[in-house]
Amino acid sequence: MAVGAATQPTTFGGDTIAFYGAHQAGVDTPPQAHAQFVALDLRPDAGRDELISILRLWTADAARLTAGRPALADTEPELAAAPARLTVTVGFGPSLFDRIGLAEARPPSVRDLPSFTIDRLEPQWSGGDLLLHLGCDDPMTLAHASRVLLKNVRSMTTIRWTQRGFRTARGTADDGATMRNLMGSVDGTVNPAPGAEIDDLVWDAGAGQPWFAGGTTLVLRRIRMELDTWDELDTHGRNLSIGRRQDTGAPLTGQDEHDQPDFGATKNGITVIPENAHIARAHHRTAREQFLRRAYNYDDPPAPGAVSDAGLIFTAYQRDIDEQFLPVQQRLAEADALNEWTTPVGSAVFAIPPGVREGGYIGEQLVGGAR
Amino acid sequence: MAVGAATQPTTFGGDTIAFYGAHQAGVDTPPQAHAQFVALDLRPDAGRDELISILRLWTADAARLTAGRPALADTEPELAAAPARLTVTVGFGPSLFDRIGLAEARPPSVRDLPSFTIDRLEPQWSGGDLLLHLGCDDPMTLAHASRVLLKNVRSMTTIRWTQRGFRTARGTADDGATMRNLMGSVDGTVNPAPGAEIDDLVWDAGAGQPWFAGGTTLVLRRIRMELDTWDELDTHGRNLSIGRRQDTGAPLTGQDEHDQPDFGATKNGITVIPENAHIARAHHRTAREQFLRRAYNYDDPPAPGAVSDAGLIFTAYQRDIDEQFLPVQQRLAEADALNEWTTPVGSAVFAIPPGVREGGYIGEQLVGGAR
Repeated sequence: MAVGAATQPTTFGGDTIAFYGAHQAGVDTPPQAHAQFVALDLRPDAGRDELISILRLWTADAARLTAGRPALADTEPELAAAPARLTVTVGFGPSLFDRIGLAEARPPSVRDLPSFTIDRLEPQWSGGDLLLHLGCDDPMTLAHASRVLLKNVRSMTTIRWTQRGFRTARGTADDGATMRNLMGSVDGTVNPAPGAEIDDLVWDAGAGQPWFAGGTTLVLRRIRMELDTWDELDTHGRNLSIGRRQDTGAPLTGQDEHDQPDFGATKNGITVIPENAHIARAHHRTAREQFLRRAYNYDDPPAPGAVSDAGLIFTAYQRDIDEQFLPVQQRLAEADALNEWTTPVGSAVFAIPPGVREGGYIGEQLVGGAR
Repeated sequence: MAVGAATQPTTFGGDTIAFYGAHQAGVDTPPQAHAQFVALDLRPDAGRDELISILRLWTADAARLTAGRPALADTEPELAAAPARLTVTVGFGPSLFDRIGLAEARPPSVRDLPSFTIDRLEPQWSGGDLLLHLGCDDPMTLAHASRVLLKNVRSMTTIRWTQRGFRTARGTADDGATMRNLMGSVDGTVNPAPGAEIDDLVWDAGAGQPWFAGGTTLVLRRIRMELDTWDELDTHGRNLSIGRRQDTGAPLTGQDEHDQPDFGATKNGITVIPENAHIARAHHRTAREQFLRRAYNYDDPPAPGAVSDAGLIFTAYQRDIDEQFLPVQQRLAEADALNEWTTPVGSAVFAIPPGVREGGYIGEQLVGGAR
């Protein structure tokens, strides 16, 4: 059995994403093929001092690993050799601010989301004091980095949940193509452009909490896809539920994926994009309702009797969850046609602190001050 | 946060591995980055007719999907567009032969392995009537193909276990480099060469069971790595346990990974490669003890209180398990230094039927005869 016309791919294992900067990497970074989100809780006897130790350890190791260098005292330095665009991003859950006696420094919108009637949230996928988010084009490098970062803080933390996700492998399709989810749909077509739009919509300016300037907020929702019933829907029904054609990703009123949908367009007196189509509910109705989507697919071993356990690790980054994400989420919860085939089973919110300067550590703007 | 000197990789999404041939693909095929092994059981009311239906469905869909074409009635044809070296390989567990009334056609060495004192086998990772093994360089294509193949047979089967594994992403390192496992070691250095060695060691010649000519047997062992204690071992201790240097993969008596180890070499009267080093126990002592290793790493969400749940999906392909695999496994179980840091938690054995000609279906040599 010989290999077909196999192509020796250009090696991209050496590609790096800068760790230091005004913002943490892993937010407006082009999404890597693999991601891991780990929520941790501080152990009951850990407080601000232990948190600072954790953040210093993570910073030192992440700075090295993302550059393709082994962590300090790395027991498998060979597994650190190909950074493959590794990023390490840290977040602070709402509960963390209370735990370390800095409740007044919590950005106001960083709190548990309100309950939605569509929610079937499971504790095993929700909440957390800390988030450790890794992205990488190579699953080996990611697995190694993850273990290094987690084992070094195990005396001060417990792992609350772990979610692993993927997109198309790097090198399988052109860089920059919109990903597809496991329903077959393009996912994340409408996103703010790098530069001014991201600056305005994603990065906090420090007006409310000066320490948070350059940070952002993250809503992470684990959304199970009910693929067994989705399969029963024909192409036409799928397209009407989404408001886009599954094949091209174009809105039902357009030709190309990035054509602006025309929500007022009618045909024979009927709205071409139904009012409860996913994109009709999800599309921003004011400029402020925009945010950065950066989802990953998950496909885990199925429960007994099931064929699959698949869905989306949906992530939204914005300055202010209340202003930007919540109005959209409220509209979706009320009347998104897709709700019949999607079920939110996990939810978590994190403040993503600003970036790190050389010599500093992640989150020092919050926890590094005098006490 | 801008991307560093990112490289647009050569697109390898279109690479294909031929589905039809004398042997099933996915055995001596160069290992893809991602693999999934699913064990299924026939439902109690299913027998030989249902098995034939399953095998016909899988053959039709696999022939299309591995060529980058959607399956028949594919509801997400967009996810089939990049085959990325997709292979689909089917196996028959020992229990299947009884279930379909063909016990006499079972290749003699296709039976549960004997118990080893090192085993801590869990039913959730062991056994199965049927194996569906997918390999692919792209996790999206793999997830789609997996769902198509599994959902089409759900009325006749139940899923017994699912194991997902990975190696280095295609494009991260040079094709053909020996993979590393999550202990940091090169894994699979000693393997028969394509061509005559594979033909002699892996593919059945049909002397015992004529239907099995061109097939092979698979031993799949899920081996948990005790990384917390492995971490406590220094480099010297690790190298002595393996018999190779972790960094270069060279045997302790050589300079390069592929140098032949010299198990008789001594220094100051002491054997350079200890007698209980992994490679000293695993190395074939007769020509017949060779087989094809094609392992994958796994790294699953950890149990409560743990930092990781990682290990190896070890696979060995050979003509005859009793002659080739078992003597080696027996030596390892008795006195492999590595046993202190590895625990077999799953075990399964499958006959991998021969390849398919166009118009035929997988396994027809066994089940397609007159009754």
